[in-house]
Amino acid sequence: MKKENILSKINSPKDLKDLPEDKLEPLCEEIREKIISTVSRNGGHLASNLGVVELTVALHRVFSNSNDKIVWDVGHQCYTHKILTGRLSKIDTIRKENGLSGFPRRSESIYDPFSTGHSSTSISAAYGLLNAKRLNHDNGKVIAVIGDGALSGGLAYEGINNAGAAKKNFIVILNDNKMSISKNVGSMAKYLSAIRTQNIYLKTKSIVDKTLTHMPVLGKFMRKLILKSTSTLKNMAYNGTIFENLGFMYYGPIDGHDIKALINVLNIAKEKAHPVLVHINTVKGKGYSFAEKNPKVFHGISGFNVETGVFGISKSDFSSVFGKELCELAKNDDRVCAITAAMKIGTGLSSFAKNFKNRFFDVGIAEGHAVTFAGGLAAGGMIPVFAVYSTFLQRSYDQIIHDAALQGLKIVLAIDRAGLVGEDGETHHGVFDVSFLNSIPGVTIYSPSFFSEVGPMLKEMIYNTQGVVAIRYPRSGQMYKPENFTSTHASYDIYGNKNMDVVIVTYGRLFSQACLAKERLEIQGINACIIKLNRIKPIDEDAVLFAQNFNNVFFFEEGMLSGGVGEYFEYMLSQVGHKGKFKLTAIGDKFVTQATVQNQLHELELDADGIEKIILRSVERIDKQEEIGFTAV
Amino acid sequence: MKKENILSKINSPKDLKDLPEDKLEPLCEEIREKIISTVSRNGGHLASNLGVVELTVALHRVFSNSNDKIVWDVGHQCYTHKILTGRLSKIDTIRKENGLSGFPRRSESIYDPFSTGHSSTSISAAYGLLNAKRLNHDNGKVIAVIGDGALSGGLAYEGINNAGAAKKNFIVILNDNKMSISKNVGSMAKYLSAIRTQNIYLKTKSIVDKTLTHMPVLGKFMRKLILKSTSTLKNMAYNGTIFENLGFMYYGPIDGHDIKALINVLNIAKEKAHPVLVHINTVKGKGYSFAEKNPKVFHGISGFNVETGVFGISKSDFSSVFGKELCELAKNDDRVCAITAAMKIGTGLSSFAKNFKNRFFDVGIAEGHAVTFAGGLAAGGMIPVFAVYSTFLQRSYDQIIHDAALQGLKIVLAIDRAGLVGEDGETHHGVFDVSFLNSIPGVTIYSPSFFSEVGPMLKEMIYNTQGVVAIRYPRSGQMYKPENFTSTHASYDIYGNKNMDVVIVTYGRLFSQACLAKERLEIQGINACIIKLNRIKPIDEDAVLFAQNFNNVFFFEEGMLSGGVGEYFEYMLSQVGHKGKFKLTAIGDKFVTQATVQNQLHELELDADGIEKIILRSVERIDKQEEIGFTAV
Repeated sequence: MKKENILSKINSPKDLKDLPEDKLEPLCEEIREKIISTVSRNGGHLASNLGVVELTVALHRVFSNSNDKIVWDVGHQCYTHKILTGRLSKIDTIRKENGLSGFPRRSESIYDPFSTGHSSTSISAAYGLLNAKRLNHDNGKVIAVIGDGALSGGLAYEGINNAGAAKKNFIVILNDNKMSISKNVGSMAKYLSAIRTQNIYLKTKSIVDKTLTHMPVLGKFMRKLILKSTSTLKNMAYNGTIFENLGFMYYGPIDGHDIKALINVLNIAKEKAHPVLVHINTVKGKGYSFAEKNPKVFHGISGFNVETGVFGISKSDFSSVFGKELCELAKNDDRVCAITAAMKIGTGLSSFAKNFKNRFFDVGIAEGHAVTFAGGLAAGGMIPVFAVYSTFLQRSYDQIIHDAALQGLKIVLAIDRAGLVGEDGETHHGVFDVSFLNSIPGVTIYSPSFFSEVGPMLKEMIYNTQGVVAIRYPRSGQMYKPENFTSTHASYDIYGNKNMDVVIVTYGRLFSQACLAKERLEIQGINACIIKLNRIKPIDEDAVLFAQNFNNVFFFEEGMLSGGVGEYFEYMLSQVGHKGKFKLTAIGDKFVTQATVQNQLHELELDADGIEKIILRSVERIDKQEEIGFTAV
Repeated sequence: MKKENILSKINSPKDLKDLPEDKLEPLCEEIREKIISTVSRNGGHLASNLGVVELTVALHRVFSNSNDKIVWDVGHQCYTHKILTGRLSKIDTIRKENGLSGFPRRSESIYDPFSTGHSSTSISAAYGLLNAKRLNHDNGKVIAVIGDGALSGGLAYEGINNAGAAKKNFIVILNDNKMSISKNVGSMAKYLSAIRTQNIYLKTKSIVDKTLTHMPVLGKFMRKLILKSTSTLKNMAYNGTIFENLGFMYYGPIDGHDIKALINVLNIAKEKAHPVLVHINTVKGKGYSFAEKNPKVFHGISGFNVETGVFGISKSDFSSVFGKELCELAKNDDRVCAITAAMKIGTGLSSFAKNFKNRFFDVGIAEGHAVTFAGGLAAGGMIPVFAVYSTFLQRSYDQIIHDAALQGLKIVLAIDRAGLVGEDGETHHGVFDVSFLNSIPGVTIYSPSFFSEVGPMLKEMIYNTQGVVAIRYPRSGQMYKPENFTSTHASYDIYGNKNMDVVIVTYGRLFSQACLAKERLEIQGINACIIKLNRIKPIDEDAVLFAQNFNNVFFFEEGMLSGGVGEYFEYMLSQVGHKGKFKLTAIGDKFVTQATVQNQLHELELDADGIEKIILRSVERIDKQEEIGFTAV
């Protein structure tokens, strides 16, 4: 029998409300199939999306969503939400250039009231939306959906602390799947596990209740007294959960795959004139056996084969090279520690964690704490290495200044996913770290272009530098390396010589693009020398003095222009009286939208094409004496 | 009878241990007197220091402190600690140039294991120190002392979540005085207030206990079962506090001014193979009646009269001008909201809070949340204004990018204490905000030099800009304004004309210094034109084109050089082909230590003296053709 196609009839949440109740489960089935087939082709977040199918259907069934607002924390679990809010027809474009984002985007739909991507923002944002509604005399509901992993982030706690003190209807759904990307850690996770698996909460409540009721006089009196007392008192006597202690009414734990139970509890929650936390248990990867068994592998992924669950074999990448080199160092120096903020696998630390258990620290999704904790370890004589994605290190800016740099403490930042990241788009690029680290006194930054540089750089960082020291490398693998180029592992390398026509200055993987451009330019009669900066802060003065030999200096940078290396290189050039032309190409005052990394680099004129074109254009202009005016960046 | 001088005999914590017990209270008296007299002369944090005298004495009595380590959160309460750890003789130099810091400093003493200044770092840092000790097989104790105010910061929660999962002796003292700087807010504060004032915790515990014991069979069985079960279960059934739920043993609340009780509980805490939280109640300002009655006034202060508690009358400052102007705007536009992170008074929002109660939000010491919450308000159609000290806004870098700028949300940042702050020293300067905001696409930044500019700028920001927009102004008042200068309220002002010898470009209060230098230079035959930038991002291209008229451009900036306005101004100048000299003076790759603001500016050659000297020196050099080489920055 051909299956009914329910999903195709859902054009907006309104259609969902008209659906007979017995169609909801089959609908969830259809959605799961759609998600699996989409992610198998486009890549994306699979396990987290499969976990919230029923929840999303229930939410849109209960809340009249053009007025009510749902904020999805992190947002990688929003595929069902997108499918149900008029974006089914475009779901095949998800994570593609000009397609749907893999995360909620305000620009995409009125059903996305707040854009997300980073963790633990939902409660704060939703509470802001709620207050705006109330000030505008709008009675719509606001719901934040947050995972137990995101709950380890301090921002979520700050939101709870603020919202819990208000006497307003405000709904937080705690989507508890026992996972961050890997297994969730920390005492909050242990606590959730206790109330989740043992279901002791309601039982204890009723024991106390019954016991008191059965005591002839005093018991009833006590019970009355307790029930009548202030809610904090009552919560405490009634053995409140943490959430009740922090001002929320608590419902749970609820089976997050039981759609009727979900609809029931949401209907209750929406009527309370009080903050409410609904704790639901879900299974990450639900309904796709490969993902259920390996949720961390199927968290954020490239395409895979639906039938077998098999990915293309992954080539070596900077993360794994870093992980291997760090293990080598740790083997010979027992001061070396590794820290991750819930990203053990992504940052290449699995082997370190296994081999140096005592010196490995997964601190939860808590990048601020990770750095301050590293500062404490360093003050105690250890050499802490915090491996973190560039975009998430933005959360640690103050801690790097205040808890490490200011105190001259040696902490090592291993900055992964530095530069453009492709399909995850504007929320996830690692294009700010150079600017914000450049502003911090005493920080040293290294930038390898090739795998072979990672080990020597790490060694140099650990044994021959002071204070905060960072190494930054891109997502995935290394790019083109000319056969006649050899890294010297000095603070910069010269590829070419000072008698050439122009000099290109760059660092990181753009060196490969510059080499390709150099070869093409040669054919066209232009000889380009390349300065490859290996240490980008502080810049070696000799590199600047070398560049001074050239009338035409071209700087290419895969990061923000403002505060970047290029700007400072220009400042140094001007200090030594360079009077030639300096042309800086970097990311101007804009965010870079999703596409492949290749296309992103192309769009920014940071690939070989761009480098070639800019140099050719400039040489022509110089011939024509036409070089004045502001360039839009 | 002449009082015995106990304090003078305490040269290190060791001496404290040998003191007879009955001398401890008189010692506390002496310390209080010392603190009051010191702060009355030097300024500093009075109320918080008076609150922890007994605690500090008890801590140093119980712990052998050269091996044990105490981390003071924020650190403004460390005066007794400094007095007892060999720094009594220097206490008169506190907060003075080359004197003791007003905060713990690693560079100052082995008894300061970690430097502090910003809130909520102590648990993370102390937990790092503890892990370093254990990895080094050192059995010393580590203690974090944190206030209830600092507990509203997410970083503290991240630390608790991480440390609470470990089975190690680790001691957190919760110094509960019901205050941040003003009254503490949020649901955690309410919760603490419940366990603090009603002392219900232990009582309830014993009720449940007794009740169960008195039930013939089932009761005893239940009790046994509960006591034997896992600690989380037990904590829950026994009505655990939040801290127990998060893995800590809880002792409290204890009277924080009862030195014997404190010594008792600390002796118990130090023996547990488990994280322990000791909750103590203290009175901010204890022992000085003016401070007890007005702890928020006596939080961080300038000198005062000990007998009367009276301060010098404070002159008008930028904070109060901002507060007044914002009230004007809010009166006419009910979308205008104000947010503070526990700094209502300091940021000039007292009047706003009183007059627009519904639109005023004190979110606790939670700068990250403040920005994301503002993003939510903005997404809901409001105009949120977050007033915050520059140094604390460092905590919001990621949120400004991710929860506002990326989404094109209009939030207003009112950045107080921008630039150098003087005696609070290196942890508190507002010298990074320009660099980190410059790196964020779409942000607009205004910088007034005078009170009269604040209102028009705010209006411009609120009604004629898009996205994230900031205004930054210094601590305290305005400086010198020449009589013949009038602000046009355009994006820049010219003071002088294009036929002059040199041009000075600057912004904010340095304009006053530049005007003074201009007058002195005139006497020496050098005519200087000044470009005063009012909007520092984006820089008006016309200002750059105007500067291009000059062969000698001098840029002065009270902020970090890297990523600052000067660097970008130079980049723009080079884009239009400026071939003249560009000399940038800003804060190089270093932290600025405590002194008066005047001395700090002088040291950095950013005062009138410095500006005059740099221009004179440069003009001479130009005559001598001697301008090449790197300047140390």
